Amino acid sequence: MELESSKWFFDEINPHLLQLHAIEGTIYSGRTKFQSIDIMKSPSFGKVLVLDGKIQSSEVDEFVYHELLVHPPMLAHPKPEKVFVAGGGEGATLREILKHPTVKKAVMVDIDADVIKVCKKYLPEYNAGAFVDKRVRVYNTDARKWLAESKEKFDVIIIDLTEPVEKGPAYLLYTREFYQIVKSKLTKDGVISVQSGCASYTELLNLKAVSHTLKSVFPIVSIYQADIPSFGGPWGFCVASMTMDTAALTPVEIDKRIKARTLTDLKFYDGLTHLQMFTLPKHMRKATARGGRLITDDSPLYLYKG
Amino acid sequence: MELESSKWFFDEINPHLLQLHAIEGTIYSGRTKFQSIDIMKSPSFGKVLVLDGKIQSSEVDEFVYHELLVHPPMLAHPKPEKVFVAGGGEGATLREILKHPTVKKAVMVDIDADVIKVCKKYLPEYNAGAFVDKRVRVYNTDARKWLAESKEKFDVIIIDLTEPVEKGPAYLLYTREFYQIVKSKLTKDGVISVQSGCASYTELLNLKAVSHTLKSVFPIVSIYQADIPSFGGPWGFCVASMTMDTAALTPVEIDKRIKARTLTDLKFYDGLTHLQMFTLPKHMRKATARGGRLITDDSPLYLYKG
Amino acid sequence: MELESSKWFFDEINPHLLQLHAIEGTIYSGRTKFQSIDIMKSPSFGKVLVLDGKIQSSEVDEFVYHELLVHPPMLAHPKPEKVFVAGGGEGATLREILKHPTVKKAVMVDIDADVIKVCKKYLPEYNAGAFVDKRVRVYNTDARKWLAESKEKFDVIIIDLTEPVEKGPAYLLYTREFYQIVKSKLTKDGVISVQSGCASYTELLNLKAVSHTLKSVFPIVSIYQADIPSFGGPWGFCVASMTMDTAALTPVEIDKRIKARTLTDLKFYDGLTHLQMFTLPKHMRKATARGGRLITDDSPLYLYKG
Amino acid sequence: MELESSKWFFDEINPHLLQLHAIEGTIYSGRTKFQSIDIMKSPSFGKVLVLDGKIQSSEVDEFVYHELLVHPPMLAHPKPEKVFVAGGGEGATLREILKHPTVKKAVMVDIDADVIKVCKKYLPEYNAGAFVDKRVRVYNTDARKWLAESKEKFDVIIIDLTEPVEKGPAYLLYTREFYQIVKSKLTKDGVISVQSGCASYTELLNLKAVSHTLKSVFPIVSIYQADIPSFGGPWGFCVASMTMDTAALTPVEIDKRIKARTLTDLKFYDGLTHLQMFTLPKHMRKATARGGRLITDDSPLYLYKG
Repeated sequence: MELESSKWFFDEINPHLLQLHAIEGTIYSGRTKFQSIDIMKSPSFGKVLVLDGKIQSSEVDEFVYHELLVHPPMLAHPKPEKVFVAGGGEGATLREILKHPTVKKAVMVDIDADVIKVCKKYLPEYNAGAFVDKRVRVYNTDARKWLAESKEKFDVIIIDLTEPVEKGPAYLLYTREFYQIVKSKLTKDGVISVQSGCASYTELLNLKAVSHTLKSVFPIVSIYQADIPSFGGPWGFCVASMTMDTAALTPVEIDKRIKARTLTDLKFYDGLTHLQMFTLPKHMRKATARGGRLITDDSPLYLYKG
Repeated sequence: MELESSKWFFDEINPHLLQLHAIEGTIYSGRTKFQSIDIMKSPSFGKVLVLDGKIQSSEVDEFVYHELLVHPPMLAHPKPEKVFVAGGGEGATLREILKHPTVKKAVMVDIDADVIKVCKKYLPEYNAGAFVDKRVRVYNTDARKWLAESKEKFDVIIIDLTEPVEKGPAYLLYTREFYQIVKSKLTKDGVISVQSGCASYTELLNLKAVSHTLKSVFPIVSIYQADIPSFGGPWGFCVASMTMDTAALTPVEIDKRIKARTLTDLKFYDGLTHLQMFTLPKHMRKATARGGRLITDDSPLYLYKG
Repeated sequence: MELESSKWFFDEINPHLLQLHAIEGTIYSGRTKFQSIDIMKSPSFGKVLVLDGKIQSSEVDEFVYHELLVHPPMLAHPKPEKVFVAGGGEGATLREILKHPTVKKAVMVDIDADVIKVCKKYLPEYNAGAFVDKRVRVYNTDARKWLAESKEKFDVIIIDLTEPVEKGPAYLLYTREFYQIVKSKLTKDGVISVQSGCASYTELLNLKAVSHTLKSVFPIVSIYQADIPSFGGPWGFCVASMTMDTAALTPVEIDKRIKARTLTDLKFYDGLTHLQMFTLPKHMRKATARGGRLITDDSPLYLYKG
Repeated sequence: MELESSKWFFDEINPHLLQLHAIEGTIYSGRTKFQSIDIMKSPSFGKVLVLDGKIQSSEVDEFVYHELLVHPPMLAHPKPEKVFVAGGGEGATLREILKHPTVKKAVMVDIDADVIKVCKKYLPEYNAGAFVDKRVRVYNTDARKWLAESKEKFDVIIIDLTEPVEKGPAYLLYTREFYQIVKSKLTKDGVISVQSGCASYTELLNLKAVSHTLKSVFPIVSIYQADIPSFGGPWGFCVASMTMDTAALTPVEIDKRIKARTLTDLKFYDGLTHLQMFTLPKHMRKATARGGRLITDDSPLYLYKG
């Protein structure tokens, strides 16, 4: 085996499965009040953002992740004007939201101001000017607290968080209580999308739990997924709403809405992509149909030890 | 990071990307005339067959691989009676073929008798009796040579080979010249399917080359893919024919044929799975549409150094 | 970097330093009542015995370890007739002891009968017939308990144990209370030697603690060390006695005693080796002179988590 | 196994033995005309200098390496006034040389000006002001060429080079022809010391070849070694001369000379250290006595592929 590096990043998929990425260079390495940040260069994936030892996004395939997270709920809603993002420090989620001409206000609440600062400096193409857009408000506080205290309601709420780690900044934003707060802050036809972790057949713990917990709050919940190579395989997302069935939209309808919203330059998402990512193979349908864990404040789910 | 093993298998995706599998136990380890064989136990994937350091299949997800490789071409053909397999040492490809009641004869040519022997002994559930089925003939010789000299024609030809390694046993079974031989041994409506390597967006070299090379021989060629977790991500396959357009079959038609062939117990494949695996996301459609390398006997493709 | 294996054994030196050994083959892999056992083949070290994920000895350099552990105390004593070994499952410690024609009785107490059984079968050259020598008695029970209850006294006591792991079989055989028992079971000029862990300048925790704890019981204690490549660097040992100063023996005296005991065929140990291994470089003298931790039953030392 | 890092440096000892160091931080990473440079922070070893993927020295144990390389030849010579260093980019070899009050001129020839520049900036404590000492001359050219063309002779010549890599900057500075040039540039009682690679019992190829090649040029050649933990085990050096037998100096004589040269603050080297490092255990004496390879310009030795 010929290895083309002597420096490697170990990404833990689980305690008996690792993905190793050659480190071509280190662009930034530091620690905020909440987590460690590394921006490395990988020969396969370009610049890679790593928080607390987990890859958050890579230059080469971040468009998949961010289009996936943003456009399905944004297109499911007929006219999203106010959008809320929990997390999203890179600014790329904002970037995708702002492509929708309907948007009048986008609020992003990320607890970690330093992540935003570092991303602005070293990954400027991720936000592509989103942070200076007049429609955007950014707050650095706990997203749950902010949302609970907010008097505003939102048409789309996007949960773009790191995975739940013991004592980490995010684990209380994956619980039923949090989703109940979200529900109370959505407008009538509002839609929520949630980054929900690995979607490999053998690693469905988090995805099933998030989907199951959402179902305890919302009547319409769908799982969707796409391969994100820098994450080491397929990644899962959930979309939920009181009224809107995102998954049921046909390819033709999606393409029509994409055109109406002037989004034809998207690289990943279109009608066929929509069809593909909401259609799971038979074994995945069966596996995700089986009830997952209910995540609550009293019984949270930790994917990694703190 | 908590590692639950001190023994690890390094799977090279490329020289700067590795997947590491904990080795829970070693069931068999040896070397044949052609390659090294390891059968290990992995906490995530159960028994794993490794040839020349590359995972071939795992107990937990081999059904995905083998159903994927076999049923699309078998169902695309109206009445497959004679089937040829190049490679396929585990016997699981035969197992899936024999589920089709139309099959009268299945010929498997795998150069390495020792792989078959070891798989029979340590992975008996893979072949599930296929090797003693009266319809089956197994030959241990070079599949290309056997096919070239054969006077028979086949309705379905399935190429289930290890990846092309320099001086390895398989690299001359990925060339245009080989596919021309295949074409000459297919019946009029015959269909060929080919294991075609990694389908990650960042690792499409082999898949694009196989698809491009098939297109230089067959008028109808389609790429399809599915996530195979033990392979470290999505895996690609091609199906080709002079007359049959497998990809164009609708979910309803696939489910009808599955029922007619009494295949309703499949774990992975059905109409929706078919739809999902032949529908690529936008960026993958674009990437695979760009012409790949033409693989010829004079200019073969090696994925790994010998 | 060219790696000549896809299977690797990870030896944890500490949580931020690992040695990786290619696994050429697995000879045995199992679990006893007390620990996991692996016997692997390494291209550098031949057969390697691994207990609970830690290398115990290798075919290529076990002679260093076993000569080092046995001959200094055996030659320090004028006429060792009765010898006790705690641990020593491979039988190689016995093998070295029995080379001394003075020996009339050698008692070995290893808690794990299965380790002995597996070593006898797969590493027969390690014991070289020691287990069938009439002078030998083997008991499978806790060595501390056996020794405490024994009515016999011994001229040499050799502590050949795995490292202290939380809840592991050995951690109570590294405490002051244990060494007090040992002292009470030594004859007047008796000598004890102890396998004491890594002797790298940066990894002296265990060696210093064992030495310090022995000094709380015995007036004469010396550290000695040698490089054991399969352990990833220099390894430390202690020798202690009420009356005998092993370290003070000159090379000439050692060579004279070696001749008298008919040990001239040793591969590692002779007068110059003795001089070398009891002479530490200046920084090591300083580092080991500083008091280490006192290990007691109430406050044991764990090198690794259980 | 608990790993305390997700970033690791792989140090190849050989193609089937690796040492992995956690990367706590990256201080500098770049590429010169001749080689790659990394300065990383390791939890075990502090700042670590890596050239072409091989550790050159670490903050925690560089004193061992540099005292070892410099003081034995410097003390063997009665009055070293002119000293030549081949390589030595960190400046720590100069630092040790300049401690000898006899020195009037120290010439250092290192081909890579960028290594010196980076070390000056990020590892200033290594050179400790040596580069601004008036006795020092630094040239950035090929050391062999410089020496061959020099009209000066030197009392001590110190070869402080990276290991011989195919097409690397150093491989022609390990050959008999090079040592013949060295010999012609030494004063009558001149002494040369050479960094000679790994001294593990299982990795003696380079050390034996260097020693053997020196013996083809000098009548008096000795091997000596010490454990350097950041290198993953014991490291070997050779000292050679036409007249001076460094190895034969007694501990008492070494301590006397150390005092006369006002070197009593050394951390590693003294009389006992000298005794220890020139005394090899029996198996190492036997292994190094067997003739090694003769390294010549026509038949150089490469430890790693280029």
